Amino acid sequence: MTEQRDSVRTRTTLLRLGHRIARDKRVTTHLFLAARALGMEAAVYSGTRDRNIEETIMEVCKSWGGIFSLQYTDDYRKFVKEWRNQNRTVVHLTMYGIPIREQIEEVRNNHADKLIIVGGEKVPREIYDLADWNTSVSSQPHSEVSALSIFLHELFEGRELEKEFVGAKQKIVPQKRGKKVVQLKHEDSRDV
Amino acid sequence: MTEQRDSVRTRTTLLRLGHRIARDKRVTTHLFLAARALGMEAAVYSGTRDRNIEETIMEVCKSWGGIFSLQYTDDYRKFVKEWRNQNRTVVHLTMYGIPIREQIEEVRNNHADKLIIVGGEKVPREIYDLADWNTSVSSQPHSEVSALSIFLHELFEGRELEKEFVGAKQKIVPQKRGKKVVQLKHEDSRDV
Repeated sequence: MTEQRDSVRTRTTLLRLGHRIARDKRVTTHLFLAARALGMEAAVYSGTRDRNIEETIMEVCKSWGGIFSLQYTDDYRKFVKEWRNQNRTVVHLTMYGIPIREQIEEVRNNHADKLIIVGGEKVPREIYDLADWNTSVSSQPHSEVSALSIFLHELFEGRELEKEFVGAKQKIVPQKRGKKVVQLKHEDSRDV
Repeated sequence: MTEQRDSVRTRTTLLRLGHRIARDKRVTTHLFLAARALGMEAAVYSGTRDRNIEETIMEVCKSWGGIFSLQYTDDYRKFVKEWRNQNRTVVHLTMYGIPIREQIEEVRNNHADKLIIVGGEKVPREIYDLADWNTSVSSQPHSEVSALSIFLHELFEGRELEKEFVGAKQKIVPQKRGKKVVQLKHEDSRDV
């Protein structure tokens, strides 16, 4: 998939801070699904471990293809510091940061692997300091799913929407009206 | 706010189908917040009426400004049909639709007020037929919050991020690190 690599060049990992099972279940799921659909390689989350979400995401990957890993960390500080120690960069999405349109070119021109951090109700001050870029997608209260999606769309300049998902068992054929899903056979050969 | 009117020309209303209080509470809230933050005028929802969400959104509007209305409908079919009868257009965001990049120019060039519909688990076939455009933001399963956000970002070509929110009581001053919020006084004069 050389083409895919070229079209979405920067490798990105999402870090979701402070997941709470009851309250965040669906929003965190949406975050991970958006991350996968919009060209990220991986997601990591802190807070409370949630096996249901992990299963949901893995089911989606199995069915719809693509390579996307999801892991839990009980020490996000250590995770971020180790990330930085390997000369990779960190973007923190926050409504308090610098507007994306003033910053995205600089981020885009940096070809290091990127960790994209999204909160959590209260993001500790340390994260603002550890980030190379504190970026806002509007300075209004809205949604980390929304902020992440627009950020990725800007980072990849829309090419993330052309991404191919290798090994998918099914695929949508776009329609003007209605739904068309085709089942793909190639995946079966792995069991032979 | 002539400038605002010019920069985000098309008037858009969100229709969220089939809200369920327990399951959708936070995702629907995120949808409405994203709609408001990204330049929509109004949102309407069907399913179960949820006063908590209505209050949350109105609190945000009071505090952060802007004009955004939220209403409930117990008959979304009627609502959509009446919308269409007034020569306004309808976009249905669905993973089964035509890719946004193939369709957005046509949508953008249509200056009628737009209803943007997002599901709900199962969207009835009728919606696909009533829509002028069934548009997909990636043909992968992800998030209606994500799809709406990227759609609006494409529709308004990024200008939605420059929107001013009139009558705000507070405003963020973007920072490289940390948070800065200023309290605005003008709102008080309304009480005099």
